[in-house]
Amino acid sequence: MTSPVLPSHGRARPLGLAQVTLTGGFWGDRQAVNATATLAHCEAWMERLGWLANFDRVADGTTGPDRPGWSFSDSEVYKLLEALAWESARSGDPGAEAAIKRLTARVARAQDPDGYLNTCFGHGDQPPRYSDLEMGHELYNTGHLLQAAVARLRTHGEDDLVRVARRAADHVCRAFGPGGVDGICGHPEIEVGLAEFGRALGEERYVEQARLFLDRRGHGRLRDIPLGRAYFQDDVPIRQADVWRGHAVRALYLAAAAVDVAVERGDDELLRAVERQWERSVARRTYITGGMGSRHQDEGFGEDWELPPDRAYCETCAGVASVMVSWRLHLATGDVRYTDLIERTLYNVIAASPSADGRAFFYANPLHQRVPGRPADPDEVSPRAEGGARAAWFDVSCCPTNVARTLASLHAYLATSDDEGLRIHQYAPCRIRAELPDGRPVSVDVETAYPDSGTVRVRIAADAGAPWTLTLRVPAWAAGATLTEGGRTRPAEPGLVSVRRAFRAGDEIVLDLPMEPRFSWPDPRIDAVRGCVAVERGPEVLCLESRDLPDPGGLDSLVVDPRAVPRAVPGGAVVRGRVLDLAGGAWPYPPDPAGAAPGEWFDVRLAPYHGWARRGPSSMRLFLPVSSAQPPTQGE
Amino acid sequence: MTSPVLPSHGRARPLGLAQVTLTGGFWGDRQAVNATATLAHCEAWMERLGWLANFDRVADGTTGPDRPGWSFSDSEVYKLLEALAWESARSGDPGAEAAIKRLTARVARAQDPDGYLNTCFGHGDQPPRYSDLEMGHELYNTGHLLQAAVARLRTHGEDDLVRVARRAADHVCRAFGPGGVDGICGHPEIEVGLAEFGRALGEERYVEQARLFLDRRGHGRLRDIPLGRAYFQDDVPIRQADVWRGHAVRALYLAAAAVDVAVERGDDELLRAVERQWERSVARRTYITGGMGSRHQDEGFGEDWELPPDRAYCETCAGVASVMVSWRLHLATGDVRYTDLIERTLYNVIAASPSADGRAFFYANPLHQRVPGRPADPDEVSPRAEGGARAAWFDVSCCPTNVARTLASLHAYLATSDDEGLRIHQYAPCRIRAELPDGRPVSVDVETAYPDSGTVRVRIAADAGAPWTLTLRVPAWAAGATLTEGGRTRPAEPGLVSVRRAFRAGDEIVLDLPMEPRFSWPDPRIDAVRGCVAVERGPEVLCLESRDLPDPGGLDSLVVDPRAVPRAVPGGAVVRGRVLDLAGGAWPYPPDPAGAAPGEWFDVRLAPYHGWARRGPSSMRLFLPVSSAQPPTQGE
Repeated sequence: MTSPVLPSHGRARPLGLAQVTLTGGFWGDRQAVNATATLAHCEAWMERLGWLANFDRVADGTTGPDRPGWSFSDSEVYKLLEALAWESARSGDPGAEAAIKRLTARVARAQDPDGYLNTCFGHGDQPPRYSDLEMGHELYNTGHLLQAAVARLRTHGEDDLVRVARRAADHVCRAFGPGGVDGICGHPEIEVGLAEFGRALGEERYVEQARLFLDRRGHGRLRDIPLGRAYFQDDVPIRQADVWRGHAVRALYLAAAAVDVAVERGDDELLRAVERQWERSVARRTYITGGMGSRHQDEGFGEDWELPPDRAYCETCAGVASVMVSWRLHLATGDVRYTDLIERTLYNVIAASPSADGRAFFYANPLHQRVPGRPADPDEVSPRAEGGARAAWFDVSCCPTNVARTLASLHAYLATSDDEGLRIHQYAPCRIRAELPDGRPVSVDVETAYPDSGTVRVRIAADAGAPWTLTLRVPAWAAGATLTEGGRTRPAEPGLVSVRRAFRAGDEIVLDLPMEPRFSWPDPRIDAVRGCVAVERGPEVLCLESRDLPDPGGLDSLVVDPRAVPRAVPGGAVVRGRVLDLAGGAWPYPPDPAGAAPGEWFDVRLAPYHGWARRGPSSMRLFLPVSSAQPPTQGE
Repeated sequence: MTSPVLPSHGRARPLGLAQVTLTGGFWGDRQAVNATATLAHCEAWMERLGWLANFDRVADGTTGPDRPGWSFSDSEVYKLLEALAWESARSGDPGAEAAIKRLTARVARAQDPDGYLNTCFGHGDQPPRYSDLEMGHELYNTGHLLQAAVARLRTHGEDDLVRVARRAADHVCRAFGPGGVDGICGHPEIEVGLAEFGRALGEERYVEQARLFLDRRGHGRLRDIPLGRAYFQDDVPIRQADVWRGHAVRALYLAAAAVDVAVERGDDELLRAVERQWERSVARRTYITGGMGSRHQDEGFGEDWELPPDRAYCETCAGVASVMVSWRLHLATGDVRYTDLIERTLYNVIAASPSADGRAFFYANPLHQRVPGRPADPDEVSPRAEGGARAAWFDVSCCPTNVARTLASLHAYLATSDDEGLRIHQYAPCRIRAELPDGRPVSVDVETAYPDSGTVRVRIAADAGAPWTLTLRVPAWAAGATLTEGGRTRPAEPGLVSVRRAFRAGDEIVLDLPMEPRFSWPDPRIDAVRGCVAVERGPEVLCLESRDLPDPGGLDSLVVDPRAVPRAVPGGAVVRGRVLDLAGGAWPYPPDPAGAAPGEWFDVRLAPYHGWARRGPSSMRLFLPVSSAQPPTQGE
């Protein structure tokens, strides 16, 4: 079986990547762009910046403290290798296969005889190995190497990359196992890498080393830093924590590993801890886009209800990591709230990052852009992780390769099987050719223009000898959905809807999801968007770009009429809005509320957030202030 | 004349420090605590941390790259020297005088023969002089040395400190003058130091060097950094900029210097540029407290309208720097909007920083604290600049000494003279013994319990031979003020109110400012506080601490009734509020607005923001969400 995550047991079983094929549509198109543009783009940038040559220099004995790139640049090579492994298996593209061999050879040459593999420490005049566990990222890099090896192992089998990874993992177990260094890495990732590598190889000791790292954490083994130990989750043991905090990607990679370890060990306490953290974090520390991370300062979660739209960080990588966590929790529990959040995050964080050509990316994904971003030079490295303009590459360039590996394996997240049959979670045109646990084949084709249309047509492609159950996720937002089969239409409540029978080839089950645009109202405790409303349509959150206003400057003082329901238009929705005349005084805190003269009502055009800034720099807002004034005529 | 700022001309002339004596009250008490506690506290911490010994080690040839403290720690010694100089002159305290001599001797020993004076660069294995203009702070340190020398020169006359400063200034002019290094310092401060040192010594060339630094800036001489060149105002020339941006203290020190240079050179273009920047920055980038700096990430201004209360940085030093700018603009123009902002900033930023005992300080001054701060250990250095708990000392400890020098010279900001007479800008019990330009003495005593009371009694202490004009500032917030003299009471509109006559000893002029607590409504474009109101009383902004609620947890879901005007109570005000029951669901963006069950209305007690967290850790909010529901009975 080939899939990024293969727990030994759980309420849902992932389908193998070979069993699901995206056949175009929203995600199929993005997967194709990823294959044809992004993968080569990433390799070219890493070659240009010397991040690949860092491996050569270690092998040649010519490296030193002056090596280019941050201490985590090795991990970008490994994430690209992971993406290439999924892509090679998906498409059989010989270019991807060649790239894997090319990169693997360079990586392998840099490995020390004892298995240590890192281009930033321990060679020449570089600082000694593991001399900066807080910020050195050595084990983090190794974790990504293991994830790449998992992809290779599951799609191809043992090869040089897997052998390199095995030696590296063995080195880590020797260096940090019982009797070794009693330390942890400032950036979790080794844990999730070790756990899956252990599963992929059937090597229990790797999972055990992951558990050891998990349980060591939270006791202040890392030194305090100005941002505090919460930054790297070394403030509270993971079994005791109630909420995610600190650096978002760190927190989420750690949580993903915790689910893996909990499942493999039957450790319900640990699983419940992560579920509890998910619940509070999703209820109080998550943006409507699914984005996580409210602060630029530490790329981190803020406090409960601290969700500013303008300074939202919502790092693309945190979106990837959130999907990793929710997917593992879903496999463990079968709970659809996790696949609901995955859908939200895929459409509104991960899809937002890459440009249409797959050669530029958002790093941060704010929900409000006050000043249009400066267009990034496609030939330059962006030193900044600001939102507003997609950049070809970043000084800290974790997001492009994370998008690449996620898109290359995206079909892994569409469906699962269980003892009863097949469950489809995400809707995209695809072909599924799987087997039930008893060995019977299930073959279905999904046809849909989702999310442009809410009609999802599941066609049975082969006769079944005996009854099985087809289960479809009805998203939490989809009140009013219906299911049609055999000429009968019935309501399909949010959650899961099932059809069980001995399907015949040609049978069709049609899920109709209501795609009228709708208002969504933030909890009043989210101070930063008080008095505002968001508009969503299906799984997409919509936003307003200033370029779609008659006067772009009106974005600061637009209000919408909450009594006029949003209307669908091709490519988005319109709401009724008007611009207040807020010339304003010298001091912005006057003794009386602003008595602004409102302009005329007009149709304000909204479009999916994931596509924003594709037409060039613009200011933008997702949450729209609500007019408290009476509209002159209702429903106009 | 002794005063921190003595322009050669301007619409208003500062009184000398010797001409004004605070006689208790809000500021007099704080000045006394500063004298008796804060100054020694600062010296003790700098001794303990080795920041003072850094000078000894340079002199002894034993320093190196391992010296303790940041590259700007020398400046803390200089700011303390400045504070001690003002204090020594104010009180004649021999302890202050002894401290000046003690510190000066250690500083002087570290000066190189060519005048260069810095403990972080250029000695032993330290990096070479001026090898890191962006972040090295060498010229910044020197600027603070010059400000200390100005204080000494004006209160005492030439001494070793002044001689050290003169050699340092001459070194800077040689190194960075025409023909020297074409560079600027990443942290403005040398400019304001040089300009005032030039004024104090009558040495035009120092002012010219300040002008040169000012005009060099904004052309990208400093290398780009991830935060962008706006961080150190090297993005746009100061004459062209429309608004303050980047690091707030940097922006404001630079603006202060620009006013100095503009005034000395009669450079109206430059003066107008700073006025224009002040206007937009105050209208769109300033908190109701007067605090400046919306972002933790870069301690900087955000975009227009980006004023989050919870993540407000509002560094204490930015408050000090804002007063420096506004005071200079007031002296140049006579415009009361500047002294209005000074009052706001003094009461709501600078007064907020020190603890009652003068031995702990706020660095950041947020307007909303979601989680009570951790009480700081009085014996430990706080590594963090978070709000919530005052700390004895900081890793970056710029604020304590900035508070110290401001409080020690606070009486400089109370009054000015002009050709007509005396103007009083800030109200505090004090004694003024000054001379008009024609040499006639003016003697007045101010009696007031301001800001607890709005009655300000100005008593003439000596007969005047001829008429002169007493002018009093009526703050912008003080609509309804009255002036009483000779038994007649008349309205006093916000702005200035004057009485002109040949005063006789014993004459009384009484200004009555309305001190009823009042609502203030943020501009609707300040997204982060939409639907909220603030409460002010006189010059004080009030806030709500969770410890004053029946259930502290109610702070997150409290709403106030905007139709019930705030009522004064001793020590603050009460508003009518109630707590919504927002148990909430799993996903905080539901399809319908929250239908929260409101609790009973009750009196919510507010107190001055500057005193918050003095009773122990608490959560806190200053902007209060407004109830949109109808109150059950009005005026209850």
